[in-house]
Amino acid sequence: MKKLNKIGVLTSGGDAPGMNAAIRAVVRKCFYEKIEIVGVVKGYQGLIDDNIRLLDPSSVSGILKEGGTILKSARSKDFRTKEGRGKAYINILKHGIDALIVIGGDGTFTGANIFGEEFNIPVVGIPGTIDNDLYGTDLTIGYDTALNTVVEAVDKIRDTATAHSRLFFIEVMGRDAGFIALSAGVASGAEVVLLPEKPTSYDELKGFLEKQYSYQKESSIVLVAEGENMGSTLDIANRVNEEHPEYDARVTILGHLQRGGSPTVVDRILASELGVAAVDALLEGQNSIMVGMVKDEIEYVPFIKAIKNKKNVNSRLLNLISVLSG
Amino acid sequence: MKKLNKIGVLTSGGDAPGMNAAIRAVVRKCFYEKIEIVGVVKGYQGLIDDNIRLLDPSSVSGILKEGGTILKSARSKDFRTKEGRGKAYINILKHGIDALIVIGGDGTFTGANIFGEEFNIPVVGIPGTIDNDLYGTDLTIGYDTALNTVVEAVDKIRDTATAHSRLFFIEVMGRDAGFIALSAGVASGAEVVLLPEKPTSYDELKGFLEKQYSYQKESSIVLVAEGENMGSTLDIANRVNEEHPEYDARVTILGHLQRGGSPTVVDRILASELGVAAVDALLEGQNSIMVGMVKDEIEYVPFIKAIKNKKNVNSRLLNLISVLSG
Amino acid sequence: MKKLNKIGVLTSGGDAPGMNAAIRAVVRKCFYEKIEIVGVVKGYQGLIDDNIRLLDPSSVSGILKEGGTILKSARSKDFRTKEGRGKAYINILKHGIDALIVIGGDGTFTGANIFGEEFNIPVVGIPGTIDNDLYGTDLTIGYDTALNTVVEAVDKIRDTATAHSRLFFIEVMGRDAGFIALSAGVASGAEVVLLPEKPTSYDELKGFLEKQYSYQKESSIVLVAEGENMGSTLDIANRVNEEHPEYDARVTILGHLQRGGSPTVVDRILASELGVAAVDALLEGQNSIMVGMVKDEIEYVPFIKAIKNKKNVNSRLLNLISVLSG
Amino acid sequence: MKKLNKIGVLTSGGDAPGMNAAIRAVVRKCFYEKIEIVGVVKGYQGLIDDNIRLLDPSSVSGILKEGGTILKSARSKDFRTKEGRGKAYINILKHGIDALIVIGGDGTFTGANIFGEEFNIPVVGIPGTIDNDLYGTDLTIGYDTALNTVVEAVDKIRDTATAHSRLFFIEVMGRDAGFIALSAGVASGAEVVLLPEKPTSYDELKGFLEKQYSYQKESSIVLVAEGENMGSTLDIANRVNEEHPEYDARVTILGHLQRGGSPTVVDRILASELGVAAVDALLEGQNSIMVGMVKDEIEYVPFIKAIKNKKNVNSRLLNLISVLSG
Repeated sequence: MKKLNKIGVLTSGGDAPGMNAAIRAVVRKCFYEKIEIVGVVKGYQGLIDDNIRLLDPSSVSGILKEGGTILKSARSKDFRTKEGRGKAYINILKHGIDALIVIGGDGTFTGANIFGEEFNIPVVGIPGTIDNDLYGTDLTIGYDTALNTVVEAVDKIRDTATAHSRLFFIEVMGRDAGFIALSAGVASGAEVVLLPEKPTSYDELKGFLEKQYSYQKESSIVLVAEGENMGSTLDIANRVNEEHPEYDARVTILGHLQRGGSPTVVDRILASELGVAAVDALLEGQNSIMVGMVKDEIEYVPFIKAIKNKKNVNSRLLNLISVLSG
Repeated sequence: MKKLNKIGVLTSGGDAPGMNAAIRAVVRKCFYEKIEIVGVVKGYQGLIDDNIRLLDPSSVSGILKEGGTILKSARSKDFRTKEGRGKAYINILKHGIDALIVIGGDGTFTGANIFGEEFNIPVVGIPGTIDNDLYGTDLTIGYDTALNTVVEAVDKIRDTATAHSRLFFIEVMGRDAGFIALSAGVASGAEVVLLPEKPTSYDELKGFLEKQYSYQKESSIVLVAEGENMGSTLDIANRVNEEHPEYDARVTILGHLQRGGSPTVVDRILASELGVAAVDALLEGQNSIMVGMVKDEIEYVPFIKAIKNKKNVNSRLLNLISVLSG
Repeated sequence: MKKLNKIGVLTSGGDAPGMNAAIRAVVRKCFYEKIEIVGVVKGYQGLIDDNIRLLDPSSVSGILKEGGTILKSARSKDFRTKEGRGKAYINILKHGIDALIVIGGDGTFTGANIFGEEFNIPVVGIPGTIDNDLYGTDLTIGYDTALNTVVEAVDKIRDTATAHSRLFFIEVMGRDAGFIALSAGVASGAEVVLLPEKPTSYDELKGFLEKQYSYQKESSIVLVAEGENMGSTLDIANRVNEEHPEYDARVTILGHLQRGGSPTVVDRILASELGVAAVDALLEGQNSIMVGMVKDEIEYVPFIKAIKNKKNVNSRLLNLISVLSG
Repeated sequence: MKKLNKIGVLTSGGDAPGMNAAIRAVVRKCFYEKIEIVGVVKGYQGLIDDNIRLLDPSSVSGILKEGGTILKSARSKDFRTKEGRGKAYINILKHGIDALIVIGGDGTFTGANIFGEEFNIPVVGIPGTIDNDLYGTDLTIGYDTALNTVVEAVDKIRDTATAHSRLFFIEVMGRDAGFIALSAGVASGAEVVLLPEKPTSYDELKGFLEKQYSYQKESSIVLVAEGENMGSTLDIANRVNEEHPEYDARVTILGHLQRGGSPTVVDRILASELGVAAVDALLEGQNSIMVGMVKDEIEYVPFIKAIKNKKNVNSRLLNLISVLSG
């Protein structure tokens, strides 16, 4: 077992519900292992600006259920420069930090990978992003909560859609990946999902909506991932409304609503497990890896793999939509 | 007490959570009073299209907690014509309907008022709209639920706003009235509210945001009613971002999310009370009135008053925002 | 206007959701009025133990939406003795506190009344209790949240009750008053409510349940206030099960669940209004009064009246239960 | 592929959120495969009583989000007798039912296994129980929803526990298994969990509580599975209170609250997947098996295995509690 005196932890990139649960687990595990733990405020920028404070079990009391991140997050331009990272390293030396735990997504791990190699400091990543688009872990922290937030919202919109027999286009997060749209689509009984991973032509969409309309469906919901291929959600809806004013289609863009809220049980447990696992990984001498959960086992995935590889959406779910929305 | 054999009930205009609770109360009260009750599907259009079905206590079993309206709602162009209303009246005669209860807002009561006078049929209205902009009742059915939906959404957005020390503009419903924006603003601790009732200049807004920023507020929320004076929410945010890119302002438009969901206790009780009161009003021989709740007493308000007069927002709450958001 | 340099605020008795919102309003209003504000931790006992700390706007940042009370609450035996109150007063002198704001119920105001008279210090009360059993205010802080918590729980139990066509007895808080049971009963469509204010005999209950059963009701819910007349909820259910094993009656006691949770919009606004009003009352030179909300106006009610008088449950709601549950 | 003309579906045993989502998936998949589908009302008793009705896509419209089961559930004594099962089989012949899908737990599959063998009718099971105690599937339908219900309740109780620095014992479902207590314990930050799978002595518990108390923990939560070894939750709390009145320990028994509510995303997707998989299994000629989800793959598990084998709680989670609650 490696000897560690002090670990630093930070959250970076888009925040996700459950990040606080992960911070709490890291802090309590360090307390349990008698390792000092400091929190870096505002991500990598906080390393550069020396925005660092001591954490102890009482600092994380009551945060398990809170959305957001007590360490705040930010995207740092400075950290993309060698100079910026140099300043960050000076602060790491100053505080006597032996190793870093970074909670975030793709961009966070890219930075961690460069930094770790440059200065030979052990860094372990915890996957925290609502998008679930990280290779090497079945689930990312925040994804299950975001899904439940989306589905509760769709359930509410369904109430009013049904009251007026209307068509709704609902845009959810996912610039590069359709995980949220697909899973929320199955869970909310969406009639159609539009994903980056499975291009749909306008004519296919139109044909489908016409079939639905002819069945006198009480309401129809099209769940749209930001990154799908057909242009903006508003444009699609406008085009549909021009050709079929009788559908009276409306648009809702759920936006940042999806990032907040008290984490679900799945996210709290995942965050607790991965927080503890990240400290264990450092104690085992691991470096430049992400701790992931794969088929309910903890796995170590090199940053380089987590960043480079593409995680695929579940094809069983794609199939479910067409069977169940008929 | 007037002898009534059969009452018809319908929902019209934008749907609101609690409409089902009102329908249930009307149906059960009629059952209690041994009056037959029929539901008109899709509002006034359903009267014209003879889309009418018998209701009994089992038809409304389990709907107390459901959003939307089992009778569906619609806006009817035909009902604005004399011909359309004539067809509606023929169906009323055909079904032997002695009186109508209409659940909705402004537009619903305008139609009811004309129809009732034209054909001398007693009509009583129940205020159901999330906007709360009806004179003659302190609360409309759906308003409290919409407020709670908005505040839960703002709470979630606050999580992510605080994590990134960001400014958010959140647009809520209210084309003519700022009730939702104002009350939700107080309840969510919004730093600013923009309302149709209290025009704010861009410079005032800017000055306020600059003051907030200089205080290093962890996050700021501006709650915007659709109908405020300064142009679209997106435009305001863009202008702010151009002048102050460091605010990194974001926009969320809550949209139809606000119409759905299981009604709150306040809305369920209000709807139950007003549903029973509407039947009582008909039994007392009332006509062309809305049943309202004023200072916790049931009042009858002539349609003409409810439509013509403007309800003011609570000035105490306006004052609260400036005291509490400092 | 009275000159005040420093106000103390405390929460006492059973905690209620929205107490934090009231503390926040008191603190921010004091900041706005340039009055120093200190928080007394753990109620009157904290006064005796000198558990007092300075508050400022940042101390109350983010607490608007939190259940519980950041000042903690406790019941104090020592404060019932003259000696205890004397120690409390010494600490008040020591800190230079000019006036006190106490948030709580019956017992809290009884203590405040004695203490204020004994030592001639202005005390203003804010009604905070989920039970709503305080004369002089239509609503107490926490009541609306507790009602929504109860109704959400009853909705869930209704799911399983209906799945098994079962009878459930659900006990809610209310040792002396049936406000929660009555309002939650209307809002959840309970078939029967048992209240201290309206004694029901076992035979009435039995007759009613037999009628319900003969109608083949899908499920029945009896909502029981702790303080009703017929003995413990468990005993009633057991007696019913002995005589009618076919009802397969079950019991759920909601307990302390009812005290927690994020406050609703009604409670957040009420707490914000009353918090500001309490400071205003002190500035106006008021003393030994509770600030209440009566028919949407703020009123000052002498402690002695708030304590001695009994608030009645709404008779319209009692009537509603019998009309709607038929 | 086996030719099937008509399938029957039923829910049996304790109801669980997501059963409706499973019914919907079975019905829509049958519609998709052009197989007739009938619903048996009230479980096996409905088979005996010929309480059977045709289902089609419109029968399951809107039920995806509803708790409970539209087919109702019941425990049937008659079905335990050969005579009862004989009557059931006669009704199966009468309706021309080729195969059965049964949704439930242990007891449901025991009955299915006997019935299928006795009368040579294909039966496939779907695991639906909040307890998660079925071998052969990582998750059962309803478990994730129950966990979230429990954790929301514990979060609320934590508010009031912290306000009063109190100790709470909270009893959750689980007569034979501690899945709910353990996972909810990790997710709610419970200080102790008491499980049937890991006997705790009273002295261990007492020692732990004393340590917590000496640390001046703001509050402590002990999560108790019904089936733990130390006697009733009430008795444990009483004993603790006798020895340590200063803990002021309280008890809440969550009870049937845990069975209801709108299913979470995890449960809706699981139910949708397993519903479709059950029909697929019958089409493949499977018989006397349960469809389970194991490491995100659908597996067929013979009833006999699912019933006889014991699923173990996750030892990683047991370890987490001791690391994180310290």
